[in-house]
Amino acid sequence: MGTRRGTNLPRMGDFNQSVILEGIRRSAAGLSRIELVDITGLSAQTVTNITRRLLDDGVIAEAGRTINGPGKPRVTLRLVAESRFSVGVHLDPALITVVLLNLAGQVVGRRVQPTADQDPQRVVATIAQTIDAVLDESGIDRGLVAGVGVAVPGPLDAEKGTVIDPPKLMGWHRVPLRSALAEATGLSVTIEKDTTAAAVGDLWTSRSKAGGSFVFIYLGTGIGSALVRDGEVVTGSSHNFGEIGHIMVDPDGPDCACGGRGCVEVMCTPRAIVEQAVAAGVFDGDGEASDGPHAEDMDSRLTRLCERASAGEAGAARVLRRSAGHFAVLISVLTNVLDVDRVVLGGPFWDRLSDVYLREIPGPLRLRNATRSVREIPVEGTVVGEDGGAVGAACVVLDAMLTPRASDLYLDD
Amino acid sequence: MGTRRGTNLPRMGDFNQSVILEGIRRSAAGLSRIELVDITGLSAQTVTNITRRLLDDGVIAEAGRTINGPGKPRVTLRLVAESRFSVGVHLDPALITVVLLNLAGQVVGRRVQPTADQDPQRVVATIAQTIDAVLDESGIDRGLVAGVGVAVPGPLDAEKGTVIDPPKLMGWHRVPLRSALAEATGLSVTIEKDTTAAAVGDLWTSRSKAGGSFVFIYLGTGIGSALVRDGEVVTGSSHNFGEIGHIMVDPDGPDCACGGRGCVEVMCTPRAIVEQAVAAGVFDGDGEASDGPHAEDMDSRLTRLCERASAGEAGAARVLRRSAGHFAVLISVLTNVLDVDRVVLGGPFWDRLSDVYLREIPGPLRLRNATRSVREIPVEGTVVGEDGGAVGAACVVLDAMLTPRASDLYLDD
Repeated sequence: MGTRRGTNLPRMGDFNQSVILEGIRRSAAGLSRIELVDITGLSAQTVTNITRRLLDDGVIAEAGRTINGPGKPRVTLRLVAESRFSVGVHLDPALITVVLLNLAGQVVGRRVQPTADQDPQRVVATIAQTIDAVLDESGIDRGLVAGVGVAVPGPLDAEKGTVIDPPKLMGWHRVPLRSALAEATGLSVTIEKDTTAAAVGDLWTSRSKAGGSFVFIYLGTGIGSALVRDGEVVTGSSHNFGEIGHIMVDPDGPDCACGGRGCVEVMCTPRAIVEQAVAAGVFDGDGEASDGPHAEDMDSRLTRLCERASAGEAGAARVLRRSAGHFAVLISVLTNVLDVDRVVLGGPFWDRLSDVYLREIPGPLRLRNATRSVREIPVEGTVVGEDGGAVGAACVVLDAMLTPRASDLYLDD
Repeated sequence: MGTRRGTNLPRMGDFNQSVILEGIRRSAAGLSRIELVDITGLSAQTVTNITRRLLDDGVIAEAGRTINGPGKPRVTLRLVAESRFSVGVHLDPALITVVLLNLAGQVVGRRVQPTADQDPQRVVATIAQTIDAVLDESGIDRGLVAGVGVAVPGPLDAEKGTVIDPPKLMGWHRVPLRSALAEATGLSVTIEKDTTAAAVGDLWTSRSKAGGSFVFIYLGTGIGSALVRDGEVVTGSSHNFGEIGHIMVDPDGPDCACGGRGCVEVMCTPRAIVEQAVAAGVFDGDGEASDGPHAEDMDSRLTRLCERASAGEAGAARVLRRSAGHFAVLISVLTNVLDVDRVVLGGPFWDRLSDVYLREIPGPLRLRNATRSVREIPVEGTVVGEDGGAVGAACVVLDAMLTPRASDLYLDD
């Protein structure tokens, strides 16, 4: 990039249209034109022109009139949720989740398939068939689908639309997922890191907390992060923002392949937490091989660990408290570098760990906060549920289409 | 922040004016109107209108005509460097540096004073007197000074304009530096973290490398960082972006007050490097007390260490190579999280360490780069010299005034 590009009237019009649509989208009850003038700062004439265009496109509709003292009654404008849709896919080593979202961000279709055979060609075929099945079931017009978002484990080559070397997906070296899936479905496809997608999902779904900045910590098979600033997700310059696997959290932890010791990858993943529980003897009486967790039982062992901790078993509780301490170190590194207002935790393993983590993380995080004399940094759980990756991926598509971005104002090179 | 605000014509005009001024500023030889149309994407009419306004304000001037085939000769427009000025102050525990910059970012005045007595009131008085002296010497009209930027050690309370607890400035608890200095000088004052200011200085001074994203590592009494994305510095939500003192870089390092071990603060500061050299016996034959470095000789000992390493002394070279390895770990944490295109190192201690660090950091950084299969991340030294903090602080003022920011397009709440 050289000098910043200028802007012009058509760009400004598109931007203001996004601003108005976002205002209406974020209001559950709808808004009148007068209210839109108030919240957007735009002139009444601009609001009238733009809302007329959105009404013509069928994206918003008039929804009743309010009489409020003398003068003309106010017409409420609301989003037509069923006017556009987007598909979200979460590609996980074990499961393929496909969801269909309407323009309001509501899930209106969903299917889950085991990834089973990991051969890339067959996985692409499975995803395409699952998308077809979800669209057929929903009975919607395919022409109303704005696109498909796919959440994948990073790193990825965003320019080429390829997944580079996802851990635990055998044979997935530089698979051109975007083009293959676009060809198989005939739809426009976007790929995004699972962590970034989950953060976009949280941003989109939490109406009340628009704006501000937060770091999102994703608890999946691996641990990743994402950043939202001023209501926009930060993807980084190569769409690989937030790789945190080799941040050291415990100098007494096990050696890591990177040459360090006690890194996030060997301390904070669900697998590592289960290993710490095994080492602490939590599963000793369970009458099964305790030679380290296998892929099949890692998930169920984590569940058992969390259940025992919440039932008051001291050993299990100690393992989770220690783990929360490691997360506090990780989170403090991120909040001190990124200078954000709050922390949001999510991802497939979050639900089970949330009780202990929400109780145990804030204390040590406060002590490690470089700006503690200026402000507290609250820690929260995500508002998106178990389908966070897939819902987030669908939101990436809606977000690209609907969220006003000042950078969209720049004229093209 | 709730819903994004819209934009309108006056905002657009201001933005495009900044874009044109930035284009002219970044071109050493000046630009014609046709060239401005080309690089900004704006219409010829818009460029003509805006350049007329800038000519009237005296910020740009016509500088000769080029005849280039048939048709009207092209008029070259260039910046009038002496049309506006800004003052930069670097408040360091040992030295107060004051510089005067013109609109082209050239240093046209400079004074350095020992901080000596650290009483806040007397320091403010010293800064104000030094600014007066620099302005008097320069003979410029005080009305042409756009403002004063002050680079201070973080953390700071940007809203209140206070410096919270700068290490090694005794008695500096929540000093309202901004208001006190504004009162003493009658000029508008901005305070910014020294690391952020230094990054803005690098961004402003390096004409050719506008745009892109880089992480800036500041080697001062403490080690800090800053981030530039798409040609704009990221200040974080409380202007405290980039606190990296407690990132662990060596699990076998000394204990840190934070509870960790081998943190940046106890491994990577100039003081820590000198301590490592003392422990390795580098100064053993120097006939002086080797009971750890004192404030007075830390600086000169670091110089001696670097001289001996470059003269080929094996022990000294080993200390610096090991230190470069620690920086490689730190930098990899930052580049993996932030997903930037390059790394820039600077700050008062950079010059002495640059030879060894530029040679030794890239190798281990490559191995730790999570996106190594997509791209390399080059490591460079800053283009700003020893006055980086003060020049950067002056650039913060020019930057706020002159750099087009899409976010400036939003209508006010």
